Amino acid sequence: MLDFSNGAAYVNEQFVPIAEAKISILDWGFLHSDATYDVAHVWKGKFFRLDDHIDRFVSGIDKLHMSIRHKRGDLRSILIDCVKKSGLQDAYVEMICTRGMPKPGSRDPRECTNRFFAFAIPFVWIANPEKQKKGLHLIVSRLQRIPPESVDPAVKNYHWLDMVMGLFEAYDRGGETAVVVDVQGNLIEGPGFNIFAVKDRTITTPARGVLEGITRRTAIEIATDHGYEVIQHNLAADDARTADEVFATSTAGGIMPITKIDGRTISSGIPGSVTQELQKRYWRLHEDPHYTFNVDYD
Amino acid sequence: MLDFSNGAAYVNEQFVPIAEAKISILDWGFLHSDATYDVAHVWKGKFFRLDDHIDRFVSGIDKLHMSIRHKRGDLRSILIDCVKKSGLQDAYVEMICTRGMPKPGSRDPRECTNRFFAFAIPFVWIANPEKQKKGLHLIVSRLQRIPPESVDPAVKNYHWLDMVMGLFEAYDRGGETAVVVDVQGNLIEGPGFNIFAVKDRTITTPARGVLEGITRRTAIEIATDHGYEVIQHNLAADDARTADEVFATSTAGGIMPITKIDGRTISSGIPGSVTQELQKRYWRLHEDPHYTFNVDYD
Repeated sequence: MLDFSNGAAYVNEQFVPIAEAKISILDWGFLHSDATYDVAHVWKGKFFRLDDHIDRFVSGIDKLHMSIRHKRGDLRSILIDCVKKSGLQDAYVEMICTRGMPKPGSRDPRECTNRFFAFAIPFVWIANPEKQKKGLHLIVSRLQRIPPESVDPAVKNYHWLDMVMGLFEAYDRGGETAVVVDVQGNLIEGPGFNIFAVKDRTITTPARGVLEGITRRTAIEIATDHGYEVIQHNLAADDARTADEVFATSTAGGIMPITKIDGRTISSGIPGSVTQELQKRYWRLHEDPHYTFNVDYD
Repeated sequence: MLDFSNGAAYVNEQFVPIAEAKISILDWGFLHSDATYDVAHVWKGKFFRLDDHIDRFVSGIDKLHMSIRHKRGDLRSILIDCVKKSGLQDAYVEMICTRGMPKPGSRDPRECTNRFFAFAIPFVWIANPEKQKKGLHLIVSRLQRIPPESVDPAVKNYHWLDMVMGLFEAYDRGGETAVVVDVQGNLIEGPGFNIFAVKDRTITTPARGVLEGITRRTAIEIATDHGYEVIQHNLAADDARTADEVFATSTAGGIMPITKIDGRTISSGIPGSVTQELQKRYWRLHEDPHYTFNVDYD
């Protein structure tokens, strides 16, 4: 009997324990980071907005000129089965499509057979609930996010070295996480999260060069529904520093307060009321059958 | 008895046939393309400039704040052993360092154990000798190379989606390969190669935002030694189009003539005399003990 309790993966058309989930070292998904992916989550036994994640994933596969034999319904079943096998009530669920391997000697991506992988592991937090009570200390990195003229950010991708090096810069400067910028110094995004600033009843989030995150979309929907004006436009670092509140959004943690930027506190330095209201409503949506469905664990 | 004839890899401190060389799906080398690598080659049983490749690789590991327990001499031995085990006389030899896996639940790259991988497979050509007689048809992509403000190109990395999408653009437009540009439209580099243009006795190659390729360096050294002026500076697409000769350099093929850009022939449309002279001298260096050493096959 295989032990899936640390997570379950779908690799080579089979379900395997996460520790056995491996990819060929020659797959261009690794050697050229020629891949797209998406991450959905399960919370208290319910999948959240899974179809929206699958939509974005399928669109990314298409934009990269890839194709896989699995239809949307197959993807859905495989992801659900990964969670069921793991038994995890709170899970981080990733789906991946890689270019695959070329024929020996070939350098032509059209000659590769694209490959699908998936896995469910215990839920991962960018900031756990304890940390979220205090809020995160964000560093504005000197590094620029890879621009949309190079890599289409609408295709969720693994090109993260800018953000990884931004993280090391943040640690050096006493911070906990980083946001990378555009050529004008506007904030773009951090490692796995989008960013928002609240001023009076207006909420601003960067529009250009960012991943169109599902949690970002959820936050925009909740805020708009509750009477806030949400502006998708450039967000200058100084506008974030002088905002009433700043927060990050991610599948890996939801809506997370940022209470310090570059060593200076935002406003009073504690998570703000707008952020807390959106947080509460975000987690409440996890009970809403319009956004969720139950995983039918055996 | 293991069969290494298709290639040999070093994974988890063991030598395995290339078909068994796998990396965990959770390694951030894959999931964040958080890795650096280098590729050396063996030609007619001799390694070419291996120490220069190891120098660059070790420097990249350091710049990414990674460390591995293998010393330079260990790396050298492992790479040589991959080639010996494979028995390949002409080989493409890759060394890789990945961030590795985080502790469960962690998002902190400092908590990962970095990992070293290596493999030797049959020599791979961007353009094989037959193709090189005719020359390549290059397309100037509309995509921009990931800029140095985002990712340091001196750290050889797998952030290739710009170049992969450039290749698809090239195929659509009737070409064989692509070069991506900078924000001003200057040529930068292609998938795995640097680019050079020859005008009279002056040779220009881009300086900023490019990988400092070992074959690029070799071409510069050969050309300088033989009386050409080599300028490392911006190379506008139109300057390449109106050059006497254009060529690409890569470990995967050496010095390779480009005879057509965007459907128009360069000069007379056949590989030029300067390119051919440099090619000849490049391959002659593969006999020179200053640049090579024999692999001691069993």
